[in-house]
Amino acid sequence: MGKIKIAVIGCGTIASTAHIPAYMACEDVEIKYFCDIIPKRADDAVDRCDCGKAVYDYREILDDKELDAVSVCTHNDTHSLISIDFMRHGKDVLCEKPAARILSEAEEMLKVSKQTGRILSIGVCNRYSNAVNNIKKLIESGELGEVHHVHASFRAHRSIPGIGGDFTQKAVSGGGALIDWGVHYLDLIIYCCGEPRPLTASGEAFCKLGKNIKEYAYKSMWAESTADFDGVYDVDDSVTGIVRTTGPVISFIGAWAQNIGESETYIDFMGDKGGVRLQYGRSFKLFTSKGAMLLETVPDFKGNEMHKDEVLDFVSSVKKGQRNRNDIENAVITSRIMQAIYDSSDLHKEIKIG
Amino acid sequence: MGKIKIAVIGCGTIASTAHIPAYMACEDVEIKYFCDIIPKRADDAVDRCDCGKAVYDYREILDDKELDAVSVCTHNDTHSLISIDFMRHGKDVLCEKPAARILSEAEEMLKVSKQTGRILSIGVCNRYSNAVNNIKKLIESGELGEVHHVHASFRAHRSIPGIGGDFTQKAVSGGGALIDWGVHYLDLIIYCCGEPRPLTASGEAFCKLGKNIKEYAYKSMWAESTADFDGVYDVDDSVTGIVRTTGPVISFIGAWAQNIGESETYIDFMGDKGGVRLQYGRSFKLFTSKGAMLLETVPDFKGNEMHKDEVLDFVSSVKKGQRNRNDIENAVITSRIMQAIYDSSDLHKEIKIG
Amino acid sequence: MGKIKIAVIGCGTIASTAHIPAYMACEDVEIKYFCDIIPKRADDAVDRCDCGKAVYDYREILDDKELDAVSVCTHNDTHSLISIDFMRHGKDVLCEKPAARILSEAEEMLKVSKQTGRILSIGVCNRYSNAVNNIKKLIESGELGEVHHVHASFRAHRSIPGIGGDFTQKAVSGGGALIDWGVHYLDLIIYCCGEPRPLTASGEAFCKLGKNIKEYAYKSMWAESTADFDGVYDVDDSVTGIVRTTGPVISFIGAWAQNIGESETYIDFMGDKGGVRLQYGRSFKLFTSKGAMLLETVPDFKGNEMHKDEVLDFVSSVKKGQRNRNDIENAVITSRIMQAIYDSSDLHKEIKIG
Amino acid sequence: MGKIKIAVIGCGTIASTAHIPAYMACEDVEIKYFCDIIPKRADDAVDRCDCGKAVYDYREILDDKELDAVSVCTHNDTHSLISIDFMRHGKDVLCEKPAARILSEAEEMLKVSKQTGRILSIGVCNRYSNAVNNIKKLIESGELGEVHHVHASFRAHRSIPGIGGDFTQKAVSGGGALIDWGVHYLDLIIYCCGEPRPLTASGEAFCKLGKNIKEYAYKSMWAESTADFDGVYDVDDSVTGIVRTTGPVISFIGAWAQNIGESETYIDFMGDKGGVRLQYGRSFKLFTSKGAMLLETVPDFKGNEMHKDEVLDFVSSVKKGQRNRNDIENAVITSRIMQAIYDSSDLHKEIKIG
Repeated sequence: MGKIKIAVIGCGTIASTAHIPAYMACEDVEIKYFCDIIPKRADDAVDRCDCGKAVYDYREILDDKELDAVSVCTHNDTHSLISIDFMRHGKDVLCEKPAARILSEAEEMLKVSKQTGRILSIGVCNRYSNAVNNIKKLIESGELGEVHHVHASFRAHRSIPGIGGDFTQKAVSGGGALIDWGVHYLDLIIYCCGEPRPLTASGEAFCKLGKNIKEYAYKSMWAESTADFDGVYDVDDSVTGIVRTTGPVISFIGAWAQNIGESETYIDFMGDKGGVRLQYGRSFKLFTSKGAMLLETVPDFKGNEMHKDEVLDFVSSVKKGQRNRNDIENAVITSRIMQAIYDSSDLHKEIKIG
Repeated sequence: MGKIKIAVIGCGTIASTAHIPAYMACEDVEIKYFCDIIPKRADDAVDRCDCGKAVYDYREILDDKELDAVSVCTHNDTHSLISIDFMRHGKDVLCEKPAARILSEAEEMLKVSKQTGRILSIGVCNRYSNAVNNIKKLIESGELGEVHHVHASFRAHRSIPGIGGDFTQKAVSGGGALIDWGVHYLDLIIYCCGEPRPLTASGEAFCKLGKNIKEYAYKSMWAESTADFDGVYDVDDSVTGIVRTTGPVISFIGAWAQNIGESETYIDFMGDKGGVRLQYGRSFKLFTSKGAMLLETVPDFKGNEMHKDEVLDFVSSVKKGQRNRNDIENAVITSRIMQAIYDSSDLHKEIKIG
Repeated sequence: MGKIKIAVIGCGTIASTAHIPAYMACEDVEIKYFCDIIPKRADDAVDRCDCGKAVYDYREILDDKELDAVSVCTHNDTHSLISIDFMRHGKDVLCEKPAARILSEAEEMLKVSKQTGRILSIGVCNRYSNAVNNIKKLIESGELGEVHHVHASFRAHRSIPGIGGDFTQKAVSGGGALIDWGVHYLDLIIYCCGEPRPLTASGEAFCKLGKNIKEYAYKSMWAESTADFDGVYDVDDSVTGIVRTTGPVISFIGAWAQNIGESETYIDFMGDKGGVRLQYGRSFKLFTSKGAMLLETVPDFKGNEMHKDEVLDFVSSVKKGQRNRNDIENAVITSRIMQAIYDSSDLHKEIKIG
Repeated sequence: MGKIKIAVIGCGTIASTAHIPAYMACEDVEIKYFCDIIPKRADDAVDRCDCGKAVYDYREILDDKELDAVSVCTHNDTHSLISIDFMRHGKDVLCEKPAARILSEAEEMLKVSKQTGRILSIGVCNRYSNAVNNIKKLIESGELGEVHHVHASFRAHRSIPGIGGDFTQKAVSGGGALIDWGVHYLDLIIYCCGEPRPLTASGEAFCKLGKNIKEYAYKSMWAESTADFDGVYDVDDSVTGIVRTTGPVISFIGAWAQNIGESETYIDFMGDKGGVRLQYGRSFKLFTSKGAMLLETVPDFKGNEMHKDEVLDFVSSVKKGQRNRNDIENAVITSRIMQAIYDSSDLHKEIKIG
């Protein structure tokens, strides 16, 4: 087998900082196409990488027999459409998270992946974090006993991305703090706890602080450098809920923005023998006991570049024709939970899942 | 009107440290009886206070015409029985929190209070905290805008009181972390937010760390100095849930004991204009904005002895024949929420309230 | 059996702060005699405790048939003599550490204890420290793997006790930093590592900083509040050495006084699977690894009063007629090591032990 | 005399970072040959320096009459062979530390240096550190009084270089932590204390943490970026010992790796008048007293590049035909000590030296 031939669909931030550098560092990969509906972005990527061809409509390359796989790095509203199109044309797909805006799109992606036999991996990159995998191993080895409760807190004071832009318009993004940040926390929990099946979800998502875009006070902005005062804001800036599963109960509280100036970004895995507090994106502490002693353990281990390892594992999956840990079958669990939370919030009552 | 004549029923810790000193400091109050089923406790109280008479069965004094009111400071399992008996005999009652072990007992107390016209105040003392009342005023004045979400965290690493004793036996106490600590947090929220009506509750209460009493690791104990290894432990050592009300959504996470060595004791009142983080039992911070400025305000105000002010207000209520803020009609709201949480945990599904 | 009858021989600091309060707190113990060659000390103890009789020569009470056991809290030079006298008269003995000034005295004590069948416990109190016992359990459970090396550091800048007095005169004390502080460190190591047999010892003890008493600069003094400029100083103010045993290799460096202004008081237990750093008299850290993770664990546990627990266990030993963990048979191991270190220092070569 | 003509034998890390830059900065030196058995390394050095000739076998240049001196920067196993060959061919030699793997090689190097009259300097570079020379002067001036004890601690948590490679194979390196790090500490002590003669050595070297290469947990590696899982590990990862000399007693504890997560890198020079704690590779503190005052002095002085000054002094030695402070006659003292420590460890008893 020669070099794996890749197309990158969408050449924005996540493509430029994560997918493209990882592919470029991979000896047996060749990026054949850089595609973006904004031509300059595709052209710039070709220049920067000194390889590949710029295309501005992904449909032009669907029939390229040489093409093995694609990275889908577009906005959430086209994840489903583009991924499905490529799978139906025989390509393997690595699609950025969240899988889709709404559950029905994600379920369709799963169905097509099964029908076509194509690999569809979702960019839930924490599954490649060394910290996360160390926690998963601790849980699997029984160090925490039965993990009966996991609590996640992802709360910022002022962190709405590009208010008024694509991130804050439900028709494009599917949601706000829950679908953008919560997806990582929930998927990470589901992964560490052995992919339990969700049973019920009760939650409330609040669209409060951003809805009057002009009155939203902030110190800096990410994703876009400034607010679009004439844009749309109809997503959740904060959210809370409780989810029962066949494994642990999951409770969470999250906010892109809230009128509390204390940020929290942690996940507590609570078992009857021990517990772990993960500081999201960093390291963790392990709490156990031994006889009458209470132990607080700070592990020290090699960090890693999870985005890079995620892309490398996708390449390896494509070569071997084997699905991996980020497969849509696993990632769809979080889509089911998030959909149930949003539905519960709309109906103000608990939703039974599945 | 002469001096108000009081009987203190149950002469344990809360009586000795809160009720008795407050009555003793009150010029127009006379403690006529100290009652405890452990005779030494009643006798000692008489000696210490140099007044009153020791009795060992509260039924002996039910018919004393001189007696105006009683403080009920017994274990949770007799709150309802004793309070109702005294009300039926024409006495006003200040009953320690929680109102009762289970909702039906509390509803019965409410019913009898209405039937008899006697005052029944419950010892939800935070309603007399200056910090809490300042927050209540901020909310009422509109400073926070619409308070759409309140989150409470009452989490300790190892703080089960007298494991194996009265606190940890459901038949005596009615429950664990939720009914013992949560009652204060929930009542305080209900009070600050104008006594909203609860609508739904979904929660889970966990009995995990204490159930093997001999294996429970701890550094020190409160309520009792040592564990009773042959006792009973069948209550919640931790709990989480979400409650919808006619006012804010309330989410909470609490633990007498958990395998996370970080303690948290705060309540976040989150409005669309501002927010408050109360450090339970201490002070609070106010978060607002003014144009593009984000403001973090640390208020400074006189602290107060909330237990003392609670008792004084009860005395004043008795004298005036007027119900007060701690009336069973208000306090029963929290009983309704807690019962729904425990039921939800038993059935693993959300409960509709009222 | 009625109350155990005790005599306290020597009523100085260690008797007043450790032995006497522990006996007084013990319901089934009666202190019958307080003995000291300084009559005021014995008299004061009787007054303070409101019990017992003051005697000024221990030989007066050797024949008291009622007397069950004694605590020997005199200077090191009489430990052997007094302990042996009481054992020969049928009494059990708790003798303060070190067992004796020199090994031959300690061996004689051991021999008499065996001949007479009397219990002889030495006050190596760390064997009753919760921290130490937790480490012992970690080692026994295999958490550290094979403990191949233990390093002890007990180094102070200026901490000679009562320079010129009994502590610094070899004829009275038997030695300085090694016999006074080192005894605790070495015995603690021997205890935790399962009483291994010492094989070789090479060390050097230095009498350098204190020898010109008048020129010794210090900030404060312990044991005695001031220096005795006309006294004797002929003991080790610092010491270092290496000891091979049937268990771990032990290396150490210690100083009552040294011209290095950094104090260190720790013991490192180094195994091939894990290690422990004990901060002497306080708590410890555990270092292990799990896969590629390096773990640093801070245990939290109830502290205890080791002196009190030591005395209580001695009382229990006397009642049951059973030797305990502080038995001279265990404590003599450290005497053998210390004697070998001092001999090695005198001869400037390694000593084979046993 | 024209320019001194130099050959650099071995063009690895220490050559590239220390020897070559120093020679290049020296006006009266010309590097004539860059020699390495890995041709690319020699070629690259020629390219980088834009001078000299690449050779791949040092024997080709032994007979070059123009060549004055060589730097031997090869692995430890060829230090002796190559240095002796060049001396026998009339060249002066600067050989990296340690002098050799075992004492007999080092003694042979000394013998040949004397026979041939060629200069043989060993790269014990701390002899050119300003901090070290300031301490040496303090000692010589009597500021510390009699230095009776020197204690060295060189302990890391996880710092084995290139596990499985040349550093950790005894046949190539001669040893581990002692010969690689200890050589610097011991030579520095010997230098500062006026080259005393060693008398006895008792020590133990432990091969514990690295021996199962695959199970060795580490965060990063030096010398080589990754472990060689199929390589050899048969050297000391930690070591301790005591050495008597005609000057001070030297005690030490060192580790490339140990299960204690606290690193220490210091040398304490302890005299009866004052003491010095050198933080290895950095600065030092001086502890003295003046009457009853205890003084802690932090000296401030110019730092220097000790490797560069070492090479410059070697060049100067070659020009003048005079031996210098790094002469094999001095450096061999440390070889004698290290050999005795390793022998003592093998035999588990003290070794008499010389």
